[in-house]
Amino acid sequence: MAEIGKPRGTRDFTPAEMRQRRTVEAAMRGVFKRYGYGEIATPAIEHMELFTMKSGEAVIEETYEFHDKSGRHLALRPELTAPAMRFYVEQLQMEPKPLKLYYYGPCYRYDRPQAGRYREFWQMGCELIGTDTPEGIAELVSLAYQAVRAAGLRDVELRLGDLSLLGFLLDDLGVQQQSQVMRLIDKRDDEGLEAMLDQQQSDTLRSFLACRDLADVASMVGEEQTGRLREMLDWLDVFDVPVTLDTSIARGLDYYTGIVFEIDAPALGAEKQICGGGEYRLVPLLGGQPVATAGFALGFDRILLALEEAGKDIEAERCMIYVAPVSDAMRRPAARVATQLRNDGRQVELDLKRRSMGKSLQHADRRGATRVVIVGDDEWERGAVMVKDMESGEQREVAVDKLPGAI
Amino acid sequence: MAEIGKPRGTRDFTPAEMRQRRTVEAAMRGVFKRYGYGEIATPAIEHMELFTMKSGEAVIEETYEFHDKSGRHLALRPELTAPAMRFYVEQLQMEPKPLKLYYYGPCYRYDRPQAGRYREFWQMGCELIGTDTPEGIAELVSLAYQAVRAAGLRDVELRLGDLSLLGFLLDDLGVQQQSQVMRLIDKRDDEGLEAMLDQQQSDTLRSFLACRDLADVASMVGEEQTGRLREMLDWLDVFDVPVTLDTSIARGLDYYTGIVFEIDAPALGAEKQICGGGEYRLVPLLGGQPVATAGFALGFDRILLALEEAGKDIEAERCMIYVAPVSDAMRRPAARVATQLRNDGRQVELDLKRRSMGKSLQHADRRGATRVVIVGDDEWERGAVMVKDMESGEQREVAVDKLPGAI
Repeated sequence: MAEIGKPRGTRDFTPAEMRQRRTVEAAMRGVFKRYGYGEIATPAIEHMELFTMKSGEAVIEETYEFHDKSGRHLALRPELTAPAMRFYVEQLQMEPKPLKLYYYGPCYRYDRPQAGRYREFWQMGCELIGTDTPEGIAELVSLAYQAVRAAGLRDVELRLGDLSLLGFLLDDLGVQQQSQVMRLIDKRDDEGLEAMLDQQQSDTLRSFLACRDLADVASMVGEEQTGRLREMLDWLDVFDVPVTLDTSIARGLDYYTGIVFEIDAPALGAEKQICGGGEYRLVPLLGGQPVATAGFALGFDRILLALEEAGKDIEAERCMIYVAPVSDAMRRPAARVATQLRNDGRQVELDLKRRSMGKSLQHADRRGATRVVIVGDDEWERGAVMVKDMESGEQREVAVDKLPGAI
Repeated sequence: MAEIGKPRGTRDFTPAEMRQRRTVEAAMRGVFKRYGYGEIATPAIEHMELFTMKSGEAVIEETYEFHDKSGRHLALRPELTAPAMRFYVEQLQMEPKPLKLYYYGPCYRYDRPQAGRYREFWQMGCELIGTDTPEGIAELVSLAYQAVRAAGLRDVELRLGDLSLLGFLLDDLGVQQQSQVMRLIDKRDDEGLEAMLDQQQSDTLRSFLACRDLADVASMVGEEQTGRLREMLDWLDVFDVPVTLDTSIARGLDYYTGIVFEIDAPALGAEKQICGGGEYRLVPLLGGQPVATAGFALGFDRILLALEEAGKDIEAERCMIYVAPVSDAMRRPAARVATQLRNDGRQVELDLKRRSMGKSLQHADRRGATRVVIVGDDEWERGAVMVKDMESGEQREVAVDKLPGAI
């Protein structure tokens, strides 16, 4: 029989990898929870139209999409904001505001697999619905930053800008086709920009994109335009979040409207961006009542890659007890001991292959057991077992009825 | 704009629903871990061929399947055993045995949505690879039972049989097309069975399927055939698991080979089965070295339905702190207080909509806050805040630097 492999660009995860992923996931969930965000989940399949409405027809090309047996045009979701907003419009519009939602799940894209870029990848993200106060948006940005820190990353950079300023500048310069210009900015495509703009437009835009403090920005678009950005930076200081002003964030999407931000892990090189988000407009497009919306998505796989680069050993500590009978007659007593320890909440491995004691100890060691409970005939008659410490090698007799407490 | 709905047969989950699902999931994971099982994950998409190899071409009809842009015939996985075994064959064959794996994830089927039957549904399951000792299989069965108990279900029934006895009986009766007979037994299709069998075959089979104790079984197939079943029942007693002998379990699949078992939640009526598993043979079919394999899958959605039927309120307890400033000047101090409490691990909601104090208290109540921290100008000047207990209505002044401990 020929082996069947996993589909190209997808991954399987071993128990060691899953322990690592679950540890990081739990740390990040903890932050979302502390900020009062509640988890939601939506299906992995959606109507293709949901994503073309948000991102245009071009998205079809890089999406897994198909017609189901009833002719519905379905997609494996390429991202999670549109599904979350669809859910909001269908079912959550009447909830008290602000509504604070988070999600974690697999997304899919059909493009060339590369290092750190998979066809099945995991996104974690938050959406804040129903408030656009500067403290609301600042809290959201702070949440993204704290989640990344909780994952264990230390060397990260948060950059923040205000897309409405770029829009104001492009209007002022009389630039047409602004969303195409935004895309070129996002791609850092200077040649493309020069081809679209005249010399004066191009020079002014380049100066603007190079601004790294509020005074420079104000000198180009006017003091009165920079009020919101100033407030944001001020609030982020209250939330104790280090931030860099970056006027060149364009996010390549038409639907962002105001404050935008990105977080990088510089250790990842060219693919360093691990988070992106901001204020956007999507709900009315999906048929809902206009409402303020902002959110961000974290690339979970890239965060793990960055942790690996940083040499973080985030495997959860293991503390496993191995229970080995010395003879066939002791197999049942050993099973009772294992059950007793498990009922007490311990992680227990019982010899299920009828190994000799020597092989059992070897296997216990390979599995990372810290203690081996040896169930022997003589001790059992006295109502006791031997407990071996795998690190020190020491053995001591322990009464069975004292067992959970004594290990 | 027209609303776009979720695809037929799929579900969205609200924060309250997700809290419930995560609570049950965590309880069941805890059991898997205590038994020494390690989590794996595989992609939601697989080559369609993986499932036709296991289950035959008929499975295509009820599977979401499509050709990707490179012409690969892919499927949204309808179940998780075949993917786990594919992973094992590809990457885990050299791991020490027994290999104990568990998984939890969404599966997909294209059939008519009904109550408790969705097109996207969640399975949790375990695979035990590399041992077929009776204590090994009994531990696996015990694990399934304990996982269901840990989920919170009390009224459940575990039934266990040995398919090799049915095979022995059918051989003995000279019955052809045994896998078709198995399927009819699984569907309880008595008419179908009578059409396929002669009178004597039919009568004998009916008597066999009605056996509910070992003596009856032994009288039909001979004492020497029932040894493994006897050992299993004996071991399940050691593991303290109540079990009923059931010779009528056929599992409708060709690939089960020996011990099989099912767990029902009778409260669910016709769709009462919440777990099924047993010893099976799949690895050689996928190109791997022959190895003993057994496992089970739990229907996570049905378990939740059964909990609901049983009236279990499994929503995790919430303990949220709401922080409300009394004036605009106090917004920044309030944000600092929220940050301080979150850094201490508390779940904190900060007023982000600039509500009046009355409205803030209303919102805090709706969100289920147990405490409201009121940040007022006078108290702040003294380095303090007011803490209101939402249950008793009592308020007291607390120094800010004593805050996390005092709530």
